Amino acid sequence: MTTALKSIKSLAPLLDRVLVQRIKAQTKTAGGIFLPESAVKELNEAKVLAVGPGGFDKDGKRMTPSVAPGDKVLIPQYGGSPIKVGEEEYSLFRDHELLAKINE
Amino acid sequence: MTTALKSIKSLAPLLDRVLVQRIKAQTKTAGGIFLPESAVKELNEAKVLAVGPGGFDKDGKRMTPSVAPGDKVLIPQYGGSPIKVGEEEYSLFRDHELLAKINE
Amino acid sequence: MTTALKSIKSLAPLLDRVLVQRIKAQTKTAGGIFLPESAVKELNEAKVLAVGPGGFDKDGKRMTPSVAPGDKVLIPQYGGSPIKVGEEEYSLFRDHELLAKINE
Amino acid sequence: MTTALKSIKSLAPLLDRVLVQRIKAQTKTAGGIFLPESAVKELNEAKVLAVGPGGFDKDGKRMTPSVAPGDKVLIPQYGGSPIKVGEEEYSLFRDHELLAKINE
Amino acid sequence: MTTALKSIKSLAPLLDRVLVQRIKAQTKTAGGIFLPESAVKELNEAKVLAVGPGGFDKDGKRMTPSVAPGDKVLIPQYGGSPIKVGEEEYSLFRDHELLAKINE
Amino acid sequence: MTTALKSIKSLAPLLDRVLVQRIKAQTKTAGGIFLPESAVKELNEAKVLAVGPGGFDKDGKRMTPSVAPGDKVLIPQYGGSPIKVGEEEYSLFRDHELLAKINE
Amino acid sequence: MTTALKSIKSLAPLLDRVLVQRIKAQTKTAGGIFLPESAVKELNEAKVLAVGPGGFDKDGKRMTPSVAPGDKVLIPQYGGSPIKVGEEEYSLFRDHELLAKINE
Repeated sequence: MTTALKSIKSLAPLLDRVLVQRIKAQTKTAGGIFLPESAVKELNEAKVLAVGPGGFDKDGKRMTPSVAPGDKVLIPQYGGSPIKVGEEEYSLFRDHELLAKINE
Repeated sequence: MTTALKSIKSLAPLLDRVLVQRIKAQTKTAGGIFLPESAVKELNEAKVLAVGPGGFDKDGKRMTPSVAPGDKVLIPQYGGSPIKVGEEEYSLFRDHELLAKINE
Repeated sequence: MTTALKSIKSLAPLLDRVLVQRIKAQTKTAGGIFLPESAVKELNEAKVLAVGPGGFDKDGKRMTPSVAPGDKVLIPQYGGSPIKVGEEEYSLFRDHELLAKINE
Repeated sequence: MTTALKSIKSLAPLLDRVLVQRIKAQTKTAGGIFLPESAVKELNEAKVLAVGPGGFDKDGKRMTPSVAPGDKVLIPQYGGSPIKVGEEEYSLFRDHELLAKINE
Repeated sequence: MTTALKSIKSLAPLLDRVLVQRIKAQTKTAGGIFLPESAVKELNEAKVLAVGPGGFDKDGKRMTPSVAPGDKVLIPQYGGSPIKVGEEEYSLFRDHELLAKINE
Repeated sequence: MTTALKSIKSLAPLLDRVLVQRIKAQTKTAGGIFLPESAVKELNEAKVLAVGPGGFDKDGKRMTPSVAPGDKVLIPQYGGSPIKVGEEEYSLFRDHELLAKINE
Repeated sequence: MTTALKSIKSLAPLLDRVLVQRIKAQTKTAGGIFLPESAVKELNEAKVLAVGPGGFDKDGKRMTPSVAPGDKVLIPQYGGSPIKVGEEEYSLFRDHELLAKINE
């Protein structure tokens, strides 16, 4: 999706949506040699940038999201709404679509 | 959809529907040079014009909508009901289809 | 659908159904000149003629319909059950399918 | 569906089912002239012959049907289970599929 | 489905299932003349042989089935699980799939 | 599905799953004559070997399964998860998929 | 899915997700002879490495997962989200997708 946003920080996800940015794969080996582009795979890891207030359960109560800004998460292979701000790409997932937290 | 409305202001969305107008992309560069039409992309940002009273939860209580008139929102790539009033185009979305609020 | 009804007034919608009649587009310009037929578009505006008693929520309580006879409404592009009485055409929609009220 | 029923009166619909018989279109004009068969359209009006005790809501309580034997109703264009008893044809609809009552 | 059952009586339907046997169409006319096989249609009438204890509603309570052994019922044109015991054929339907009771 | 299980007894079904083994059709006639393989049909009867603790209803309470180990049951023509342990084949069904108990 | 994880231990499944690793089939016979690769079948047995805190029931309460880290489980033939960490492969299943516990 195309936006004219100046900064991704102006985006506040609604309901149970979670704004993430995919973590870029390293393009150099540990020894500092640049990898050929075909060897750089897109990772399914992402950093949580912003989290909506939570969706509603069937009694109209907010459900607390499972993640918080700053969390590193495992995202599914498919799905999510892509957003482009300048040259950077982001995605919006629903809270329950995120697979796992990554603790480091 | 075609209407004979004199003004979009006469439209009061029902239930959880939200009336928005897509924000037009700039057709000039910052320096004032006109962009060729092919370089002007349709934005997924929209301004909320009117909001329905909210849908019903399963106990028959109204659910408060997540947005209010005047809000700027990120709309999904597909979906929504297009409405034409005069030369202007508008869309109706359901509250939960809106992706994020845009704070400026 | 074909009926042998003498008058549309004999039709009492059941549950959450709403009987509407599409508003006919003007076939003359403001200045009184007749528009060619190809320029007359079918409008998505309709007048509510009759409203059912409301559907049931999951606890068996009637849900009050959102519109009332006499209301002008925006109807969706597709859907509804068409009914023909004499030369006139009407439609039955479910309450939640109606998009917006039109206030004049 | 084929039955060996002697009379349609022996049929007691179960749950929310409603037994109706389509009203036959007139095959003569008001002036008594017979219409050619191609001009006789099948009507979407039907007479209610029998009504089941009502389906169950999610708490196991019976939901009162919207129609009663003797009612004239508008039936949908498609759907319903056709039943043939002798030369006569009948249909079973679910209560919520009936569109409107016809008051005369 | 193929079984090695000695008697259909050993079958006790589970939950909301109902065991029925289709009533065979008469192969003779009232006057005793045998009908050609092509004129003998399969009937949608069946006799209830056994009824399960009932399915559960959403609160875990058993829902009383609508029919009892010995009832004659109208079965839908399609559906049901066929069972063969010796040369005889039977069917298992879910309670809510049965269309009507036949009172004689 | 392939397993390295030493014994099927080590398998404890989860939630509402039921472990069954299909009953083998007789390959001899009552008089002791071997049937040609083409005449031996796969039966839809199975013996219950193990039963899960039951699924959860919508209030989070366990629902008691309908069958117990040792029960003989009628299984549906299609469905179930096949499991192979050594040369023997077993299946896992969900409790509600089983059609009937077989009482002998 | 591709990750840059250093260790699978840094993965904490969300909601009702369960992280498992498939048990490798033996590549030698009991007598110590190596099996040809075509004779080594992928097993549907897996070891549970980590378990999410549980999904929510419809009243917003956590549902206790059926398995715990260290459990050996039977996994379905299809489904699950594959994850690769270094040369090792893992899968994420939802709790209710696991078929059985394997007790040894």
